[in-house]
Amino acid sequence: MARIVMKFGGTSVADCDRIRNVALRVKAEFERGNEVAVVVSAMSGVTNRLVGYVKDIDPLYDPVEYDAVVSAGEQVTSGLLALALKRLGLKSRSWTGWQIPLVTDGAHGQARIERIETEALEKSMTAGEIAVVAGFQGVDADGRVSTLGRGGSDTSAVALAAALKADRCDIYTDVDGVYTTDPRIVAKARKVAKISYEEMLELASLGAKVLQTRSVEMAMKHRVRVQVLSSFVDAPGTLVCDEDEIVEKELVSGIAYSRDDAKITLTRVPDRPGVAAGIFGPLADANINVDMIVQNVSDDGHSTDLTFTLPRNDLDRALIVLEGHRKDLGFGRLAPDRNVVKISVIGIGMRSHAGVAQKMFSTLAAKGINIQLITTSEIKVSVLIAEEYTELALRALHTVYGLDA
Amino acid sequence: MARIVMKFGGTSVADCDRIRNVALRVKAEFERGNEVAVVVSAMSGVTNRLVGYVKDIDPLYDPVEYDAVVSAGEQVTSGLLALALKRLGLKSRSWTGWQIPLVTDGAHGQARIERIETEALEKSMTAGEIAVVAGFQGVDADGRVSTLGRGGSDTSAVALAAALKADRCDIYTDVDGVYTTDPRIVAKARKVAKISYEEMLELASLGAKVLQTRSVEMAMKHRVRVQVLSSFVDAPGTLVCDEDEIVEKELVSGIAYSRDDAKITLTRVPDRPGVAAGIFGPLADANINVDMIVQNVSDDGHSTDLTFTLPRNDLDRALIVLEGHRKDLGFGRLAPDRNVVKISVIGIGMRSHAGVAQKMFSTLAAKGINIQLITTSEIKVSVLIAEEYTELALRALHTVYGLDA
Repeated sequence: MARIVMKFGGTSVADCDRIRNVALRVKAEFERGNEVAVVVSAMSGVTNRLVGYVKDIDPLYDPVEYDAVVSAGEQVTSGLLALALKRLGLKSRSWTGWQIPLVTDGAHGQARIERIETEALEKSMTAGEIAVVAGFQGVDADGRVSTLGRGGSDTSAVALAAALKADRCDIYTDVDGVYTTDPRIVAKARKVAKISYEEMLELASLGAKVLQTRSVEMAMKHRVRVQVLSSFVDAPGTLVCDEDEIVEKELVSGIAYSRDDAKITLTRVPDRPGVAAGIFGPLADANINVDMIVQNVSDDGHSTDLTFTLPRNDLDRALIVLEGHRKDLGFGRLAPDRNVVKISVIGIGMRSHAGVAQKMFSTLAAKGINIQLITTSEIKVSVLIAEEYTELALRALHTVYGLDA
Repeated sequence: MARIVMKFGGTSVADCDRIRNVALRVKAEFERGNEVAVVVSAMSGVTNRLVGYVKDIDPLYDPVEYDAVVSAGEQVTSGLLALALKRLGLKSRSWTGWQIPLVTDGAHGQARIERIETEALEKSMTAGEIAVVAGFQGVDADGRVSTLGRGGSDTSAVALAAALKADRCDIYTDVDGVYTTDPRIVAKARKVAKISYEEMLELASLGAKVLQTRSVEMAMKHRVRVQVLSSFVDAPGTLVCDEDEIVEKELVSGIAYSRDDAKITLTRVPDRPGVAAGIFGPLADANINVDMIVQNVSDDGHSTDLTFTLPRNDLDRALIVLEGHRKDLGFGRLAPDRNVVKISVIGIGMRSHAGVAQKMFSTLAAKGINIQLITTSEIKVSVLIAEEYTELALRALHTVYGLDA
């Protein structure tokens, strides 16, 4: 007998028919002799509607009351799925975050899980009840409902799997696994059978939307084996696991892209110590995360150009912040650019093989694509290019790294 | 300084604009120097949608999971109203049933309040916070969310007012008070300034939909002064209070009607002991409440006709139950009639004045309206007549008892 946590996202529980379909999948898993806990999201559209109400009432809302409102969606789904399972003749009950309890810190709207008290839950499960847990939510030390941030149900599921020492955490979603790249752009993209935590973490952070980044961090930390699979088709998914479980390690496992970035260039920045701090300090104070940075060699020994990327949503605010410091910083022009894309190749094989980055640069050059910025880590290389080359670059790189199906 | 409980129903909080409007009313009450607790219903339409989901998943649903699902609506409204109050610069927080806690028995879907632990709530209120309480819900001894039945937010408000020893419980709704009869039918209907608990209880039970019957019972038991008023117009409402507070007692205070009843006549029922038990026993077993009953004088000394009323929704089931017992009961025909209305005149003045019932019978007779059944109590007379005479009867009675504006 194994213990399995299954998680179903918003599109998988979008209406009563889909909830019945989910109940059948849960029943099949249970009847294989497993103990099963299910984590559910809100029915698709519900969380957006609730967030819309909150922002209508107060754009600068109190996050504690925001959580009281938006946590209702998952509560509804958990009750409905428990009903659907009972309808199939199974024993089941719903659990809210406070009923478990799943205790978080007080950072409402973005709370972090501190502990999960599994005693009542395990008692129910060992008595043959299927536990249906409202995802995305917990309770803080003051007894107020908290939420884990958008996409938090993935995190709920992985945290629950860790706390319950589950054998596997199956994340059912509207895609059937993790692909070498976005199959909507690259027709030859392949589903990956196994991928390491480290690679998945880079993929999630760099734009692949299949799993929430925090849930992958948590899976890596607690070594939870996570399977990503479709709730609509019966097909093997992708297992996210320790790299030791992966026999054939690819040089490059996947290619991610993100259109969520923008670029700012400051021209004729004085070339003296302290200038970078003068620029990035005020941005950090405004809660704007800067990602890639390049400072050009000084032309004249007195001034230089400085270029960096930041979330596209924060671009307007960043320009206002920098204009406000124009006098102290003494730069020339402030040149924003929204039409950029960040493309990243990821693979644990890179650790032991040189030449991955060089192959990326030469492939893009051969296609006439100019590289604006570069960053690297042990297992990935990211470049910033003009957005219009996204498809061309992805297809060329997918082929050159031998990923085509 | 007084302590006030305010309750707003579903149409009063139907969208964000109305929630803002409610917040302004609460602010005004608070700024008069009062401590304020607010009880809210779900936004109109939400509870029906949630109940629809539950019945779609399982028409014979588990009431515990039903409660987990449908209680979400009030939770959302309480958070939104707390946000709207904060937006106005007031201190406020939302409370779910389990956070208070408001403890109920385990009769899910129709739970009864056992106790309200007001300590945390009062601490918050005396610190100047406006408490916004999700109506309709509580928590049972097992920590599962329970609901009080449809319209239960009225009951939540009155119970909270009793527990908090509030000076008044203001029920804001879409009508501006209690009327002598339905103003949509009788144009000359008048708003009543004060009405006794006993009269209000009869009015609520006999078809007036302005307050839930259980909330009036609870107000009467705990002597909570309840004011019914509109959340849309600024006008004095109706105070439901002890009859000692009412100086000028009317002979008749109001005329109620109900189209929710149906009539069944059984012909040629054997006229022997035990027959009534044989008929009403199986109906009681099927949870069908019989209201008015009349047994005719036997024509031949051997058989008689028996007529009774029951909720119109239960008519089909009742006919099936009775047909199933035709052999043991040995009746002749089973004649159902849906086209009936129950009209009731209510007034505490009746206790000391004879002739109220006689005036009702003669007025209806003068209009050519046949009375099918009659029941009376100390402070009301009810008659069953053909439904087509509803308006005619209401207008005639309203005039003859001197209620016209």
